[in-house]
Amino acid sequence: MVPPELDEGLPLEKVKDFSLEELLGMAIKAEIGARKFYQSLAERIEVESLKEKIEWLAGEEGKHEALLRKMYESMFPGKGVFFPKEHIGPELKPVARELHSAQDIIELIRWAMRAEEIAAHFYEEIEKIVETDDRKRLMRYLSDMEKGHYYTLRAEYELLLDWEMYSQMMHVGP
Amino acid sequence: MVPPELDEGLPLEKVKDFSLEELLGMAIKAEIGARKFYQSLAERIEVESLKEKIEWLAGEEGKHEALLRKMYESMFPGKGVFFPKEHIGPELKPVARELHSAQDIIELIRWAMRAEEIAAHFYEEIEKIVETDDRKRLMRYLSDMEKGHYYTLRAEYELLLDWEMYSQMMHVGP
Repeated sequence: MVPPELDEGLPLEKVKDFSLEELLGMAIKAEIGARKFYQSLAERIEVESLKEKIEWLAGEEGKHEALLRKMYESMFPGKGVFFPKEHIGPELKPVARELHSAQDIIELIRWAMRAEEIAAHFYEEIEKIVETDDRKRLMRYLSDMEKGHYYTLRAEYELLLDWEMYSQMMHVGP
Repeated sequence: MVPPELDEGLPLEKVKDFSLEELLGMAIKAEIGARKFYQSLAERIEVESLKEKIEWLAGEEGKHEALLRKMYESMFPGKGVFFPKEHIGPELKPVARELHSAQDIIELIRWAMRAEEIAAHFYEEIEKIVETDDRKRLMRYLSDMEKGHYYTLRAEYELLLDWEMYSQMMHVGP
């Protein structure tokens, strides 16, 4: 079951139905959503090492938003960002409910992995559309960063499945 | 040309020539080497956003060392860690020289990517050897984390290749 923090969105093939301006608007919106999701998730997590990792992800998404806004401004100078109501791929939303168990956290991390994985592919699709080398490069950067997030989350996910071990291992000092 | 910060080491197939105790000793040594490499590299980098990312990697490797030491202690209680002189895959060493150009940094990041990629495979090999579920899980955790590092580095590498763009994009505020 898809949780309230994830909006499934359109499949990747729909990229071709939108203009670059719209796609960038979607990307910026997705980064904002991801940042708020991770921030709200971190607030609900007590295990310090995991909280820190999720806060780190929130900060990263904030930086991506800034990079995308800068690119948007260079391509559409003076225009405010246009946010289409549709979006490609899953979109993360803030966690507004109490999380009652490790299982709740595990489920959300699993969905976040899915969102990160598809975000990586979304940037690869935009890379094909933008024309200059520097913009292609920036899309590859964002795609690789999201892949990095995916593996970081997958690592935590795998260990969280054995909660007893997780809490034992994660109380090690630096 | 292999830089002084990278010791090539033995190919992955050699894993079978060593005991688990030796392999864990190699893994701990590699994490220590990677931490010192990233710390010394961060000290030599002036671009704040890149410096922070490299410092973050150093901190992560420090945590991996602690996890591995905990596992080692649980498997070989009371024994000090045995560090074999050989090691599997590339081993990173501290950066002891001045870096004169962006190109020097780019080269080191490329080698670090290689070391992270092979470290991920090294942990996959150890996963096959350890017998209990919790230890297999920990090896998958470490393997995925190193894959995450690989993509994080690849993202930076890709953008660093266009230094003018990098310095321009990376001065964006949060």
